[in-house]
Amino acid sequence: MTALDDRSVQPTVTTGPVMGSQKVYHEVSDPDSARPLRVPQRRVALDNGSHIDLYDTSGPYTESSADVDVHAGLARTREPWIRDREPVNGAVTQMAYAKAGVITPEMRYIAAREGMDPDFVRSEVAIGRAVIPVNRCHPESEPMIIGKSFLVKVNANIGNSAVTSSVAEEVEKMVWATRWGSDTIMDLSTGKRIHETREWIIRNSPVPVGTVPIYQALEKVDGDPARLTWEIYRDTVIEQAEQGVDYMTVHAGVLLRYVPLTARRVTGIVSRGGSIMAAWCLAHHQESFLYTRFEELCEIFRRYDITFSLGDGLRPGSIADANDEAQFAELRTLGELTHIARAHDVQVMIEGPGHVPLHKIAENVRLEEELCGEAPFYTLGPLATDIAPGYDHITSAIGAAQIAWHGTAMLCYVTPKEHLGLPNRDDVKTGVITYKLAAHSADLAKGHPRAQEWDDTLSTARFEFRWQDQFHLALDPETAQSFHDETLPAEPAKTAHFCSMCGPKFCSMKITQDVRRYAEENGLSTVAAIDQGMRDKSAEFAEHGQRVYLPMAESE
Amino acid sequence: MTALDDRSVQPTVTTGPVMGSQKVYHEVSDPDSARPLRVPQRRVALDNGSHIDLYDTSGPYTESSADVDVHAGLARTREPWIRDREPVNGAVTQMAYAKAGVITPEMRYIAAREGMDPDFVRSEVAIGRAVIPVNRCHPESEPMIIGKSFLVKVNANIGNSAVTSSVAEEVEKMVWATRWGSDTIMDLSTGKRIHETREWIIRNSPVPVGTVPIYQALEKVDGDPARLTWEIYRDTVIEQAEQGVDYMTVHAGVLLRYVPLTARRVTGIVSRGGSIMAAWCLAHHQESFLYTRFEELCEIFRRYDITFSLGDGLRPGSIADANDEAQFAELRTLGELTHIARAHDVQVMIEGPGHVPLHKIAENVRLEEELCGEAPFYTLGPLATDIAPGYDHITSAIGAAQIAWHGTAMLCYVTPKEHLGLPNRDDVKTGVITYKLAAHSADLAKGHPRAQEWDDTLSTARFEFRWQDQFHLALDPETAQSFHDETLPAEPAKTAHFCSMCGPKFCSMKITQDVRRYAEENGLSTVAAIDQGMRDKSAEFAEHGQRVYLPMAESE
Repeated sequence: MTALDDRSVQPTVTTGPVMGSQKVYHEVSDPDSARPLRVPQRRVALDNGSHIDLYDTSGPYTESSADVDVHAGLARTREPWIRDREPVNGAVTQMAYAKAGVITPEMRYIAAREGMDPDFVRSEVAIGRAVIPVNRCHPESEPMIIGKSFLVKVNANIGNSAVTSSVAEEVEKMVWATRWGSDTIMDLSTGKRIHETREWIIRNSPVPVGTVPIYQALEKVDGDPARLTWEIYRDTVIEQAEQGVDYMTVHAGVLLRYVPLTARRVTGIVSRGGSIMAAWCLAHHQESFLYTRFEELCEIFRRYDITFSLGDGLRPGSIADANDEAQFAELRTLGELTHIARAHDVQVMIEGPGHVPLHKIAENVRLEEELCGEAPFYTLGPLATDIAPGYDHITSAIGAAQIAWHGTAMLCYVTPKEHLGLPNRDDVKTGVITYKLAAHSADLAKGHPRAQEWDDTLSTARFEFRWQDQFHLALDPETAQSFHDETLPAEPAKTAHFCSMCGPKFCSMKITQDVRRYAEENGLSTVAAIDQGMRDKSAEFAEHGQRVYLPMAESE
Repeated sequence: MTALDDRSVQPTVTTGPVMGSQKVYHEVSDPDSARPLRVPQRRVALDNGSHIDLYDTSGPYTESSADVDVHAGLARTREPWIRDREPVNGAVTQMAYAKAGVITPEMRYIAAREGMDPDFVRSEVAIGRAVIPVNRCHPESEPMIIGKSFLVKVNANIGNSAVTSSVAEEVEKMVWATRWGSDTIMDLSTGKRIHETREWIIRNSPVPVGTVPIYQALEKVDGDPARLTWEIYRDTVIEQAEQGVDYMTVHAGVLLRYVPLTARRVTGIVSRGGSIMAAWCLAHHQESFLYTRFEELCEIFRRYDITFSLGDGLRPGSIADANDEAQFAELRTLGELTHIARAHDVQVMIEGPGHVPLHKIAENVRLEEELCGEAPFYTLGPLATDIAPGYDHITSAIGAAQIAWHGTAMLCYVTPKEHLGLPNRDDVKTGVITYKLAAHSADLAKGHPRAQEWDDTLSTARFEFRWQDQFHLALDPETAQSFHDETLPAEPAKTAHFCSMCGPKFCSMKITQDVRRYAEENGLSTVAAIDQGMRDKSAEFAEHGQRVYLPMAESE
């Protein structure tokens, strides 16, 4: 019996389209196959007859007639792709293929998804500036890419702890997080049923799944770090690899000699994995097996195409500790390990802080790129201040937008419960939406070719008083509409040519519409000509009794 | 009968200390007076016996035995200061005194509040790089300063609209906003009882009050911009000046020739005041009275010491329109007007956008400083993306932190209801807290001498598992504690040496405490010595059965 046969687990997952959106698939021809690739998009149809297609992470759950059987798992779409290709130099990794000049179906799929050239995708993977986390044992996932040349991605952490949530809840949290845009999820489960929970998540996840194997290894030694061994860890990694984990956080940069560097810190070691490895190093007074056996780990990873997420076990946990010697010493070691992994054709990304004031953020990216050969940077926030527990999704979104603009490729979300408690379903949504807007802010600043179209479409709808379109184009349509309805609940207000802030009598947008309409009607194309139009407009105002803002009934 | 005699208005305002805090006053001697200045602070007493005093904006409402009579208004503390000084060159402005080398009690008070030298305060005001908004008719206010060398300030907009809120509600909103840290408030009331609402707010406000006089002037002409005249506007300004308005937004930079520059924009003119003035210019086909009568306005302002907040009527309302010709053309005009006002010894700040992508933010500050002689910049956000209605407190906090780091002196808050509806009480609090954390992030990045102490104190409390201290030091202690209690409601959890995320079995902070305690006990002062300590620690771990994380009962 596999985990999914367990009928005592009955996840209820959210299905159906996001309000005002429709799931569509773009068909992309694949020269290696008779069947086209089907790339998902979230289509928002607008009241003016046009539409916009947005990047979509939500899997089949948001199809209009979603036929979901969580006991069967998602369709294994990638299975034939994986089956039909030979290893390159013994590796089945996207990096190995990329270096060999092969454009995989995954790369082609991603190129369509991002609006990029397939060979550019290949070349970014070949040099390690981007990664495609796709364990061959997770054929259900929709290929995606993490790299500074592409859309900034967002990860959501889920996972049960000893008491607080069930397997079914975690499956729904995964579906829920991807519904709102999470590009990957990490299962950080501890406690009981860790294997089964992960199996349920992976078999039903349309996005890559990451883990921190040391957590499960620690459970196997009853929570005593000193009893951890390479063999226990290795077996845990293989167990998770076989399940299909796409990327794994490995805190291999916590060296014995770095531990004392944390002694004078305000907040010492705040990474769970980092503290486990530091405890091991102290107990044994030697370098950890993650470091000494790193090449053996690479050999395992290359057989599955698991991506390293080299963990920052010594990341700063407070503003005071940002950019200190402990942090950057570890980063240098992560750089060494990156080059070793790449020599094995294994993909690598690098985890980053944490808590960093605004003026120290750019240095993190610069050093990471320099030391780690531009491996994709994957940061947690960073929080730009420590003084706002309860609002750390915001303190960290400030830092996240900034660091992503400078080149971070994926952002790990932070929820309002950070430092205080475990996120519930609402917190997960708030965390994901907050990070999507931070990531998108960075996409705009980086000039991603598809980013600004979304803003412009929404702002045009706003300007033209197409309220429903404005809601539907929002990252979170439900919240946008419910906030509007709090002030002006009636249905006519959604077609009204004013908003609740200024009321019908005077509205700043209306005058510009008058100005613009006049310009267009008269075919004016230069500022000078428009200026002439202004003169006529002046006369027209007088004709209409000098009233710019007509009562609503008249303006309809 | 004055407005406050109206017993039909019965505001219920929030009083008493913020959770875990105590209002204290630092006494500062004033060479010009027998009585010391009493500078308010929010004192947080910590469980370890120490305390920290934080900048406080909340007025007497947060005293432990607050004796508040809203019908009487606050004490007129500044009255003797104002009475006891002669005009300089006919002006009673802080700028006039500063230029004449006079350190006013207001400057001395501010110096103590900010931890700066009084003569430095004076010199910043003299050159116009900082403003002290203190209408001589608002003697109830506690002096504060807005300038890039000082703590970044936050403004909250309040004000009733035609139907949705009463006078009493607005008074409470003012008290509520300042309780959470709003440094100034703007009363943007429209509709009925605009004069009475403002009177109630000013008489009870411990912070400077700003307005946009054109709103009230427009009410006087039944909402028809074309019927506005200089005389109606001037009389409105004087009416508000006599009430004690400390700063006024004046959209004097909207010139006729700039209006056509907005015709091709995605969102045209989004400023309410800007659209009113544009409508006036179009209707009359001439420059507005705000521009042509600007020097007369300066003469009024200098008699009261009202600070100009030169409005950005042509600010961008979308990412697409950021940093365009309309916006910067107006900014150049605001620069001209700044120099005119200063020649009249009138203080000036400059309003800024709006909606700006991250990579275009710095240019806004650079140009503003260059064109407007480093007059304090006062920005609304800016929003770093348009796609997240319902979350625009966050999209704008991202931009706000960034622009404040670059030099913006005051941030106008944005609430979650922006673009959608009118903020309620919860939204006001969310907006203020969000902006305080953004402002503080900038203070940290700018290296304000008092900023990081707060973060370090909170992070130390976090590291030492002083949960109550962590809550009390938070910008919003109530939310921090309630989030914690959702996961671990029991009282013992607040003294527990673990947090709800990792549980009692393994906690990353605990190991560092072990490391550090060992180092301290052994008087180790160098990294090398700590390293030796690590060796001993290794042996100690073995002695304790290799268990780093002792069960909770034992660790107590």
